[in-house]
Amino acid sequence: MNVNGKHYRTIWLNPDGSTVEIINQTRLPFVFETVTLTTLEDAAQAISTMQVRGAPLIGATAAYGVCLALRDDQSDDALDRGCEALAATRPTAINLRWALDEMRKAVLNLPREARLAAAYTRAAQICDEDVETNGRIGEHGLGIIRAHAERKKGERVNILTHCNAGWLACVDWGTALAPIYRAHDEGIAVHVWVDETRPRNQGASLTAFELGAHGVPHTIVADNTGGHLMQKKLVDLCIVGTDRTTAAGDVANKIGTYLKALAARDNHIPFLVALPFSTIDWSLEDGSAIPIEERGGDEVKFMTGKLKDGTIATVQIAPDWSPAANSGFDVTPARLITGFITERGVTPGTREGLATLYPEHVKKRAA
Amino acid sequence: MNVNGKHYRTIWLNPDGSTVEIINQTRLPFVFETVTLTTLEDAAQAISTMQVRGAPLIGATAAYGVCLALRDDQSDDALDRGCEALAATRPTAINLRWALDEMRKAVLNLPREARLAAAYTRAAQICDEDVETNGRIGEHGLGIIRAHAERKKGERVNILTHCNAGWLACVDWGTALAPIYRAHDEGIAVHVWVDETRPRNQGASLTAFELGAHGVPHTIVADNTGGHLMQKKLVDLCIVGTDRTTAAGDVANKIGTYLKALAARDNHIPFLVALPFSTIDWSLEDGSAIPIEERGGDEVKFMTGKLKDGTIATVQIAPDWSPAANSGFDVTPARLITGFITERGVTPGTREGLATLYPEHVKKRAA
Repeated sequence: MNVNGKHYRTIWLNPDGSTVEIINQTRLPFVFETVTLTTLEDAAQAISTMQVRGAPLIGATAAYGVCLALRDDQSDDALDRGCEALAATRPTAINLRWALDEMRKAVLNLPREARLAAAYTRAAQICDEDVETNGRIGEHGLGIIRAHAERKKGERVNILTHCNAGWLACVDWGTALAPIYRAHDEGIAVHVWVDETRPRNQGASLTAFELGAHGVPHTIVADNTGGHLMQKKLVDLCIVGTDRTTAAGDVANKIGTYLKALAARDNHIPFLVALPFSTIDWSLEDGSAIPIEERGGDEVKFMTGKLKDGTIATVQIAPDWSPAANSGFDVTPARLITGFITERGVTPGTREGLATLYPEHVKKRAA
Repeated sequence: MNVNGKHYRTIWLNPDGSTVEIINQTRLPFVFETVTLTTLEDAAQAISTMQVRGAPLIGATAAYGVCLALRDDQSDDALDRGCEALAATRPTAINLRWALDEMRKAVLNLPREARLAAAYTRAAQICDEDVETNGRIGEHGLGIIRAHAERKKGERVNILTHCNAGWLACVDWGTALAPIYRAHDEGIAVHVWVDETRPRNQGASLTAFELGAHGVPHTIVADNTGGHLMQKKLVDLCIVGTDRTTAAGDVANKIGTYLKALAARDNHIPFLVALPFSTIDWSLEDGSAIPIEERGGDEVKFMTGKLKDGTIATVQIAPDWSPAANSGFDVTPARLITGFITERGVTPGTREGLATLYPEHVKKRAA
């Protein structure tokens, strides 16, 4: 999407055909800067320090990370070490593992001298496919928003989202935000309630940044606010992304998603999850088996932002003596999910719903 | 309770017998300082800027505010003007209105020359009664925590609380935290999950401060985390305070309380509300009729804390272009509340539960 009128993806190959450029998302919304990834370690660090984040973008970055791992050494060993280092960066997002598998498949049976070129080709494909996939998610989700707009006779459609599942979480378009961008671009009046998304504030920093940059009306709210907004009938639908969805339809997503799904059900508001095929973990049924990343408590106790003079500073917001816990994700059970929006269409939030859209996986498991 | 080994209340009359001293809660947890209230305007400002907050303490401060209003002028007019100014400071907490009514009753039928002394007497009583009331809430709630401790055979009891309903929200003891202090003091192993409570962070700053100062084990979590903790069976019970509870048992409390109540029900965890009689609004049935305070969006977009060098600074955490909405409270319907802990005992979270404890109010309404 656009920043200052210029179109960007979140990750791209530099003209040298070798190094990779990313947007450093830890500096947003105040500083828009790009970072060059030259080595495997650069890529792994970009993921673990969350310079890049969002399940699809983590996958895309890992794909290019494999390319960087193979630059000087195309052996099986180098491939293994690269994949291991990248897989260890974040435990919850399944796209990471999917992308690494894709990269392995693309290079493993090739002679060494063909591997590097094949890796770069597959990484570029993964990025292009992500853009195409999310474009389709946008199209399918657009139908839902349009139906709400028609029912409301043109009055604006209020959509609540949690965390950032926009273009900054993907290569372009986004998952949860793709339908919103499509609706806005078609002239449908939409307004987005942006959950701040503590403790890392991806909503207040990234979602607000990208919606504002594209001109989509939005309002930031504390994560505590969504239930109240729903009770007051100020939310027409919720759309969120996911880091991993099981075959049964349980959804791991940013911590706090479960609370909004509970409130949506209590207030009879559709709760939709937008995701590409690569986020579905067909090997898992029960969402409680998804590994949940535990991050450092300092992300809760410290907050980074802009001082009045424009410098970026970090302030401590809790007493020295208090520990903090910081689970990165929670699991929303399928029973709370109205529907999935995928690149293949919209389907109920159930095992059967997913199976209808992806029959090939169900067959594979039954075999 | 104690700070640095010295016992404090949150509000007290100075030795001059006229001015009133409060703890400036906007500087906590980093600076412990007191502020002298000399005029009605001082008292109103202390409430509206949240130097004092918490339903019971707002009531106590308003009571002394009436005294300050009468210092130079004991006319009906001065009384009316004082009560009006104080009532306008915060719309949701019912204790404020209750305390102003009590002060009116105490002075209105007296000759002018007797009014000032009577006002100071009644304000002191309101403070002492608050301490006694909360002491009883602590005693009644202690039984619940003890029962959990026995069932868990001494393994620590994990209690989740939202916002600050501790001694800093009252004159002493607290409402929601009173049973926790009592249990801790009796040697029962308790651990408190402290919701950060965005946007004003009363949990991370005030609750963490006062629990730590008293030595009660606790862990700060982002507001998003409670549902996940409950799913993982890491919460035995929830105890929160309230700013206004209707005769039917609907509970207005800090924004986000409703989300935790939904999660507690979904995970079969008791959700308890601790409150003194003065927080019940017998004139209201439906919680959706409670006025909800809308505060400025800057409380969401800016965050104050301590820089590394110890100075207190405010950072902006969202893009300039994004507006923010900031509802101060939400309403948890009685159907989600397991029970009330009041100075008269523990009762189910229903209209009948409240009526059993306070039959005199039900009779009055029926009459």
